[in-house]
Amino acid sequence: MIRTESRIRVRYSETDAMGFAHHANYVTWFEAARIEMLDRIGLAYRELEASGYFIPVLEVKVRYRRPAFFDDRLTVTCLVKEQPGVRFRIEYEVRRGDTLLATGSSAHAFIDKSTKPIRPPRRFLNAMKAALRNGIPGPGGHAG
Amino acid sequence: MIRTESRIRVRYSETDAMGFAHHANYVTWFEAARIEMLDRIGLAYRELEASGYFIPVLEVKVRYRRPAFFDDRLTVTCLVKEQPGVRFRIEYEVRRGDTLLATGSSAHAFIDKSTKPIRPPRRFLNAMKAALRNGIPGPGGHAG
Amino acid sequence: MIRTESRIRVRYSETDAMGFAHHANYVTWFEAARIEMLDRIGLAYRELEASGYFIPVLEVKVRYRRPAFFDDRLTVTCLVKEQPGVRFRIEYEVRRGDTLLATGSSAHAFIDKSTKPIRPPRRFLNAMKAALRNGIPGPGGHAG
Amino acid sequence: MIRTESRIRVRYSETDAMGFAHHANYVTWFEAARIEMLDRIGLAYRELEASGYFIPVLEVKVRYRRPAFFDDRLTVTCLVKEQPGVRFRIEYEVRRGDTLLATGSSAHAFIDKSTKPIRPPRRFLNAMKAALRNGIPGPGGHAG
Repeated sequence: MIRTESRIRVRYSETDAMGFAHHANYVTWFEAARIEMLDRIGLAYRELEASGYFIPVLEVKVRYRRPAFFDDRLTVTCLVKEQPGVRFRIEYEVRRGDTLLATGSSAHAFIDKSTKPIRPPRRFLNAMKAALRNGIPGPGGHAG
Repeated sequence: MIRTESRIRVRYSETDAMGFAHHANYVTWFEAARIEMLDRIGLAYRELEASGYFIPVLEVKVRYRRPAFFDDRLTVTCLVKEQPGVRFRIEYEVRRGDTLLATGSSAHAFIDKSTKPIRPPRRFLNAMKAALRNGIPGPGGHAG
Repeated sequence: MIRTESRIRVRYSETDAMGFAHHANYVTWFEAARIEMLDRIGLAYRELEASGYFIPVLEVKVRYRRPAFFDDRLTVTCLVKEQPGVRFRIEYEVRRGDTLLATGSSAHAFIDKSTKPIRPPRRFLNAMKAALRNGIPGPGGHAG
Repeated sequence: MIRTESRIRVRYSETDAMGFAHHANYVTWFEAARIEMLDRIGLAYRELEASGYFIPVLEVKVRYRRPAFFDDRLTVTCLVKEQPGVRFRIEYEVRRGDTLLATGSSAHAFIDKSTKPIRPPRRFLNAMKAALRNGIPGPGGHAG
């Protein structure tokens, strides 16, 4: 299993009139954490796009358990449990300290510049396979 | 069944480097459409909050089928299929013309100012019941 | 002088923990109003980009006088006072009813796909000149 | 002079169809950097709000010189040059490495919960005075 942790600090612009972090932000935090997870296994998403590979989101789910507030320091955990094929799936957990605030998942595929579905590049599949087998080296960073 | 339609025009600020409307915006479009659906059955969300009722999101799901682009005029359909109890569920369909771009759902409950779960106000339950039975009068508006 | 009006309804996602529409949204509302102003003089920004012309923002200023709140129906007025040259300037006024909430301005130039500064296309200069002289036909629409 | 530096990594959700970081994000980055500047002089904005002080934005200006791109690691410098009175002003510089991408400023005042203008709390004025005289201890952090 791949498991990486990213740090998010809730911005004032992310709050809403309820005083909570607005629920749509979790989807962007998942993305920031996902991009950092790819970094950690040696796949800069910026370089994937530069070489003609794009990874759109096919599906996203978020289950909100407790609100996050302005200035909260959150940890977003990315979990990959299965070797990606043409599609792949990532799970997320958002915590403030030990308190689980939200869980979620996203599903993805690869497309090329013309938005045609394509097979993932070999280096993506290899990096995922190695990380699923060996784990991720080093400490987590900051996603936002 | 309650069925309302809201109009969204994709803003430039909502696009991303892939050239698509960024996937997190669908969650905010669902919200804009949901608030307009409540308007249409006589429940201004602004007044609900002013009277101490808040409707946080417990869960949101989006399935992305085709991308939306800058300046697209989209229709977001809100569907309520069951009489709300303590919790309620709304489904969404996003279309450009006849083309279905995305589907989704959200689940909700009521809380008070102290974030304590509470029963929905009677006028909410009554308005939903009437709309589920009789449908919604009048034409759709603009959500954004 | 060119003067167009666009309608914005404040989304819940645009509010912040102060209970106001977050100040960064005015910059995106200016953009939505600016794009509608271009529509109104016959220049769809989508088509400008499709033909290789991009109009980045060189400068933006906003002066906030009074807050906007969730669900407010705002009018954003775009004003163009001078014939564009290589650069051009747009002014904005944001109102709720008769109450002026904010004023601002943006400055722009044209670039091509490689981000090189270029002269505005002739049809842009002509459409601006005609609108500055003759005004804008027809009613305002909805920007968001 | 107070001078603090904050780190921002451009999120994918912050990009636009031009391939740039959308210009409205600079306003939210300024805010994130401003909140970190307040942290650095011992004034957590979260605590200011909890004790009934709010700092709305009266004015914001941004001058864009060069675009930022997805995944860029930016430094946002906050500069305070004068002791705050009832109003105060902060300047900003956004850099990628040594390259200046944007400059800007914001003007602020204090209000209470009822949005009535009030004098800044003494601890704010004292912390600003001390930091203007003595500088800021310690290294910069991460704003986003």
